[in-house]
Amino acid sequence: MGEKEVHTERVCAQFHRAIELIGRRWTGAIIFSLTQKPRRFSDFKDAIPELSDRLLTERLKELEDEGVVVREVSTGRPIQVVYRLTAKGAALQPVFDAIGQWAHRHPPAEQEAVR
Amino acid sequence: MGEKEVHTERVCAQFHRAIELIGRRWTGAIIFSLTQKPRRFSDFKDAIPELSDRLLTERLKELEDEGVVVREVSTGRPIQVVYRLTAKGAALQPVFDAIGQWAHRHPPAEQEAVR
Repeated sequence: MGEKEVHTERVCAQFHRAIELIGRRWTGAIIFSLTQKPRRFSDFKDAIPELSDRLLTERLKELEDEGVVVREVSTGRPIQVVYRLTAKGAALQPVFDAIGQWAHRHPPAEQEAVR
Repeated sequence: MGEKEVHTERVCAQFHRAIELIGRRWTGAIIFSLTQKPRRFSDFKDAIPELSDRLLTERLKELEDEGVVVREVSTGRPIQVVYRLTAKGAALQPVFDAIGQWAHRHPPAEQEAVR
């Protein structure tokens, strides 16, 4: 894609990719739970009980591939595997803050139906 | 959900719902294109050429149901139908600004592979 295309009316591909990454089913919740603290695989259940192990594995792999999450293996015994946000992942905090503010100021449509 | 649950470690349901709404396939791009200007159905193609009419119809209906988009029918001739953001939809601007900033500061992983 040439430089000339950057300022056309088309929705920016990088923006599109970013919003669909964080909005992918459960991905936002997984990243958010890592903004609270690094987690072992089994710890994600505390934050997201509905999420299956299979889907958690898949999502964590995607987030590793995107450079948002890093998987750390401890050298001690017993070996522990911990997932944490990279700098790129931690930089999503303002996005999550903005979504949280919006979500609380503008509840789902059915809750507004009384107007 | 009782008040006691609000401050548990679980990812907030409203946050989860909001992030998955705007991250649904093409939804972010559709809302973003409406932050630029109100659009007739056929105008969305300028911003999102890849989006099919079927999926655009479906997404616009979802966004109307969520109170994010409103469909306005003009009284003149020829009748024109225009989609625009509601106040709730326009309030997503800070979210989109934050995602845009993040996306441009942190390009996709493959572009970072030279590190």
